[in-house]
Amino acid sequence: MRILLIHSDQITYETQKKTPVAEENIIPADGLEEALTAFCAVEAPDEDNIPGVAAKTAAEILETAEKLGTTNIMIYPYAHLSSDLSNPKAAIEALTTIEEICSQKEGMTVKRAPFGWYKAFTISCKGHPLSELSRTITPEDAEEKAEKK
Amino acid sequence: MRILLIHSDQITYETQKKTPVAEENIIPADGLEEALTAFCAVEAPDEDNIPGVAAKTAAEILETAEKLGTTNIMIYPYAHLSSDLSNPKAAIEALTTIEEICSQKEGMTVKRAPFGWYKAFTISCKGHPLSELSRTITPEDAEEKAEKK
Ligand SMILES: [Mg+2]
Repeated sequence: MRILLIHSDQITYETQKKTPVAEENIIPADGLEEALTAFCAVEAPDEDNIPGVAAKTAAEILETAEKLGTTNIMIYPYAHLSSDLSNPKAAIEALTTIEEICSQKEGMTVKRAPFGWYKAFTISCKGHPLSELSRTITPEDAEEKAEKK
Repeated sequence: MRILLIHSDQITYETQKKTPVAEENIIPADGLEEALTAFCAVEAPDEDNIPGVAAKTAAEILETAEKLGTTNIMIYPYAHLSSDLSNPKAAIEALTTIEEICSQKEGMTVKRAPFGWYKAFTISCKGHPLSELSRTITPEDAEEKAEKK
């Protein structure tokens, strides 16, 4: 899993067109002000442990949101962050799991842009030193976390 | 070299703060409408042939701009596209070379966001099927191109 976290004044998206792997039952257009936008690329090695990688990713996103003092999270699938993507089914499972875990945290407003659609989007990055972070999360990272429990 | 090309209704940036590797003599804030934004991460292996990789990257950017029918290009350093970055001096050399080559094409307006600064930015992606492309360009790709000449 490769993630890029951007502390944003604004993030909006609008679906334009389906790709062959488009998910159904989507919110076609939405947005958030004052949010942490989490661009996510689910990778092939993540298929070994999608629940674990998703849980570790959600924990990273929530920790960053807390540090930044934001209560809004936009989960945004972004294939261009990796050249070794997972299959689409695994990606959707990971993204929905991340969304669910983040939503369970009290006081958080969490939205998720649809997977497998061409989308127009606008993002404003705040630009302070902590406003852009990237991370790679592997199934091994997820294991380590589970062992520590 | 890892690049992410976004066909944008708008791209603006505003420098906020220097990092330890900040370049000097910069344009602190700027923007373009109706542009191809080229986010670029110069990678460690590129150091073997910075002029070649920069030339190949510029050619990719110009070809994409031509396909999209845009005459505005914003070159934007973006370290988060790679986890194996070049040294800062090589990165600045690559970015300025890309800027120079793109600028030489008649009718092109080319701008470059400064390297090594924390920057606020806003980008609007058009969202049509060709509005987001990513590529990895290696010194070997640059060699191939040179041999074909
Ligand atoms: Mg790479």
